[in-house]
Amino acid sequence: MREVASFISKAEAFRTGSSSPVAVLEEYLATIEKREPVVKAFKAMAVERARKEAAASEARWKAGKPLSAIDGMPFGIKDILETEDMPTGQGSPLWEGFETRRDCASVQALRDAGALILGKTTTTEFASRPQFAETTNPHDPTRTPGGSSSGSCAAVGAGFVPLALGTQVVGSTLRPSSYCGAIGYKPSIGGFNRGGSYDYLSHSCTGLIGTTLEDIWATAKALVERTGGDPGYIGVTGPSTLPAASQPKKLMFLETDGWERVTPGAKAAFEEACAKLKAEGCEIIEGSEHGELAAMDAAIKDINKLSEVILGWEGRWPLNGYAKIDSSKLHPLALQRIERNRSLTLDDYQAALETRAALRAQYAALVKGADAVITLAATGAAPKGLESTGDPGFNIPASVLGVPGLSLPLLADEGMPLGLQLVGKVNEDASLFSHAGWIVNNLG
Amino acid sequence: MREVASFISKAEAFRTGSSSPVAVLEEYLATIEKREPVVKAFKAMAVERARKEAAASEARWKAGKPLSAIDGMPFGIKDILETEDMPTGQGSPLWEGFETRRDCASVQALRDAGALILGKTTTTEFASRPQFAETTNPHDPTRTPGGSSSGSCAAVGAGFVPLALGTQVVGSTLRPSSYCGAIGYKPSIGGFNRGGSYDYLSHSCTGLIGTTLEDIWATAKALVERTGGDPGYIGVTGPSTLPAASQPKKLMFLETDGWERVTPGAKAAFEEACAKLKAEGCEIIEGSEHGELAAMDAAIKDINKLSEVILGWEGRWPLNGYAKIDSSKLHPLALQRIERNRSLTLDDYQAALETRAALRAQYAALVKGADAVITLAATGAAPKGLESTGDPGFNIPASVLGVPGLSLPLLADEGMPLGLQLVGKVNEDASLFSHAGWIVNNLG
Repeated sequence: MREVASFISKAEAFRTGSSSPVAVLEEYLATIEKREPVVKAFKAMAVERARKEAAASEARWKAGKPLSAIDGMPFGIKDILETEDMPTGQGSPLWEGFETRRDCASVQALRDAGALILGKTTTTEFASRPQFAETTNPHDPTRTPGGSSSGSCAAVGAGFVPLALGTQVVGSTLRPSSYCGAIGYKPSIGGFNRGGSYDYLSHSCTGLIGTTLEDIWATAKALVERTGGDPGYIGVTGPSTLPAASQPKKLMFLETDGWERVTPGAKAAFEEACAKLKAEGCEIIEGSEHGELAAMDAAIKDINKLSEVILGWEGRWPLNGYAKIDSSKLHPLALQRIERNRSLTLDDYQAALETRAALRAQYAALVKGADAVITLAATGAAPKGLESTGDPGFNIPASVLGVPGLSLPLLADEGMPLGLQLVGKVNEDASLFSHAGWIVNNLG
Repeated sequence: MREVASFISKAEAFRTGSSSPVAVLEEYLATIEKREPVVKAFKAMAVERARKEAAASEARWKAGKPLSAIDGMPFGIKDILETEDMPTGQGSPLWEGFETRRDCASVQALRDAGALILGKTTTTEFASRPQFAETTNPHDPTRTPGGSSSGSCAAVGAGFVPLALGTQVVGSTLRPSSYCGAIGYKPSIGGFNRGGSYDYLSHSCTGLIGTTLEDIWATAKALVERTGGDPGYIGVTGPSTLPAASQPKKLMFLETDGWERVTPGAKAAFEEACAKLKAEGCEIIEGSEHGELAAMDAAIKDINKLSEVILGWEGRWPLNGYAKIDSSKLHPLALQRIERNRSLTLDDYQAALETRAALRAQYAALVKGADAVITLAATGAAPKGLESTGDPGFNIPASVLGVPGLSLPLLADEGMPLGLQLVGKVNEDASLFSHAGWIVNNLG
């Protein structure tokens, strides 16, 4: 794992003036100037405003009055999240240039915390599969960065920003984080307020992509303290600073549907990591030796089909309406999806919700017996080419189950980054971070 | 209760050609032309489009191929709900003329069902208390129509449309329905898909305002079959046509916080209605003779304070952001609310969510022993003047408890309409309609 200092570790330097948010921003801008022509992570940028706000942040730090731990931190914002100063295009020619005239909840919180909204990052169309953006993987421009949070993960992987906002309803935060060598964090269901985010699906979440657990946790707290979780949800809870690293004594390995398609390199990397963890004294339980774990894995083999019914029904709005506005501006795959989902009924949906609730209960009962679940974050390195954003098989369970997930860039495949995925317990995100911290310290 | 034929009862006439959606629309337009200059219910209208679509609807009915039971029905849409052809101004000078370029979920469903989106109806600012609109009560122009769904309830009360969409998070559908002599329906929590509605609060619902239970139920089904309930909720369930009228054997009278401020006329009207129901064989249980009922009433006396914590926290986004965009365009009361809510913490909110969940469980246990709860829908007739939209004391419980409520225009106070309120059980909206049907038949 690439050794980088967290943004928040610079607090003392900001106070004394040996560094400053202005200097940090200029470093990032220099990297962007050099690499963005190939990476193409940004859809829009607000450089002058960021410079102005960095100067204001610098003054606050020097006066000993930062607005938060992330005061002055530059952010990339996935282009399905509303920003008052930049258009929100949803990766769609239909919405290209659309001015929402306001900030979404998480951007409002970030600005109130003193953070810099440096730019909007590319997304696949409507944060789903079809890809119009030409973003490339920062580790190999012939490969996809993954999706749908393509630009956010590419920007963090390329060193353009320390933190970016993404979203995940299938695998849109953890898979591209794995491909781009970033840490990806998908919170417990309802963890961050999705107000003003163009994703309306019932197990979708705003996710964070960063280079250090410290910065990600500080961002999570800055968000939740200002605009909470989704309305009706308690939001991400936990201490105000990163929970102390804590060795996971017992981990459960979930194969998920992804394991069938794992590359030899990814499999070897995962097995090596597990061997190291075992050598450090972490027990790793497998389905072959644990009936309930095997039953869980069997129950989630088809979870993609379940997810497709839920998202297919829920996605009829606004997708069907968009097609009526101008179907020529929708990707053919989106139009196919609309047609396929017309046959879904409310009964199908209600049955799917019941199945999802049962799976969540089954998972909750299972993981009481462990500290966390461990698996891969992707089937292997980012695929070649920019059309496919890769295989989300490993990511769907945490999404549908509504539990927190982290992709840790500790592994490699084909000389590319690969994420080790930790999946936690609902509303115990802080515990997941503490175990992730220990694993990063010991495997990183 | 004013005797009116439902729109859906004209189906046979539409098929044979003895009436038509075009003729029905023109009748409504004639009433609008005559009375709208005083009532001022509409913020925007799409008359030519409605006429064109009425003609298409007429052709479908004649061909025996209506898209739904409400094909050709004209609708008013509260101006916090997105419409692709009319701006969505949220009752706010800040958002005046804002083009969302798409339909919200319920409008998408209505159009897919063949309904006519005739116009946008006025709302208080952000569907909260401050009133910029000059809408008057259709029964007395010196009085408020109530709010926040001011224009929707005034339009139905004035005979401008048979059906209108509103929303309710405190009392914004049932109270103005009571004042304007319309039937108001607030569904179970999550009953209709709020996608594209500018209300993000956790116990807010899209509500329906109409002149007959038949039309309201047909609209509910048309919505739910096309765009469902809120994501993750099963939505309003029940038969495809209005459930048969069924006598409520046992009703519980909840005083609510409103009873302390009820007018003498409203109290007398309510007591007379209860006496009639008892004479017909309906038992009406009061708190003085039922400990759990008295305990429930005691528990909800302070429910407004609870609601204010929940909505105050949740409303920080987008309200605080709007104030930063241009505070001069917000009502001074909204600015006061923002300042007051700055002191709320996530801990306050989490505690309030727990209290709300406990009240919901207490209510669910209580109403197992009855068919429904009966009370008033307002403390009396619509108040004089247009500044205040009236007292929501009777409406807050159903909102916070997440249960369905109906305001039935069966009573009078000061020669003005007054609603009898029935409150049901969560996700048993159909049962509430069947009891309401019996009461309308026997008291109306």
